[in-house]
Amino acid sequence: MEQVTFTNMCMIENEKGEVLMQNRVLSWKGFAFPGGHVEEGESFCEAVCREVWEETGLTIESPKLVGIKSFMEEEKNRRYVVLLYHTKTFSGALLDESLQIEGHLSWEKKEDLRTLPLSRGFSDTLPVFFEEQTSELFYNENNEILYF
Amino acid sequence: MEQVTFTNMCMIENEKGEVLMQNRVLSWKGFAFPGGHVEEGESFCEAVCREVWEETGLTIESPKLVGIKSFMEEEKNRRYVVLLYHTKTFSGALLDESLQIEGHLSWEKKEDLRTLPLSRGFSDTLPVFFEEQTSELFYNENNEILYF
Repeated sequence: MEQVTFTNMCMIENEKGEVLMQNRVLSWKGFAFPGGHVEEGESFCEAVCREVWEETGLTIESPKLVGIKSFMEEEKNRRYVVLLYHTKTFSGALLDESLQIEGHLSWEKKEDLRTLPLSRGFSDTLPVFFEEQTSELFYNENNEILYF
Repeated sequence: MEQVTFTNMCMIENEKGEVLMQNRVLSWKGFAFPGGHVEEGESFCEAVCREVWEETGLTIESPKLVGIKSFMEEEKNRRYVVLLYHTKTFSGALLDESLQIEGHLSWEKKEDLRTLPLSRGFSDTLPVFFEEQTSELFYNENNEILYF
């Protein structure tokens, strides 16, 4: 039994092959895909759909789980988990600028992502989204990055 | 923060398209794919490789995460999670019969799985392994099955 914080992040891709980025201002500052926390008793998929809707105004459908990122927190027996999703299916319009409380939203070209000021650890996460054979990123006890 | 039991299960497929089944005798009795518990501080992928090796004698490589099963346990704020993997890449030989402590191992045709006496809940899990668009199985508070 472990104490776990479950979170999620979704790469939303439009018809032009651009992805929706959020320039986070409250925590984990910098550019990242939208997402947030899973609530108690909530399914993982419902959680990511809710978070994306709250933060972007978009309704995503059938997000596909592409992998998991996790690390043990400083206190032993506590794990932080990020479930990573991808979808090309969504509807609705982006939130008005004034409602983008957690961070400004913008569509960015996939090939430009690494030129943006990314949120801490976000660049480590990109292989899980972009490499078919990679479905896990784990930071070990020495804070080394392991991909599987 | 939730209290979580992390487990895993792996569909190991051979060149004939058969999958390795374990007829579990200690808990969750009946036929299922091999797997077990994730240990504290262990990456999810290393955990499933270790469990498969311990229970079958096979060394799997690059297991692909295909989805997640989860449900809240009776006590609120406790979640049981099963990480579901698939691989066609493995080496080694099956454990001797005398060492198949947790359950007899056999290669079975995929189309025959539902004719076997399956472990509780295992048949619910099969769509996550066999349907590309399905990556989550969640039992809600009414014990209804939700697929995503």
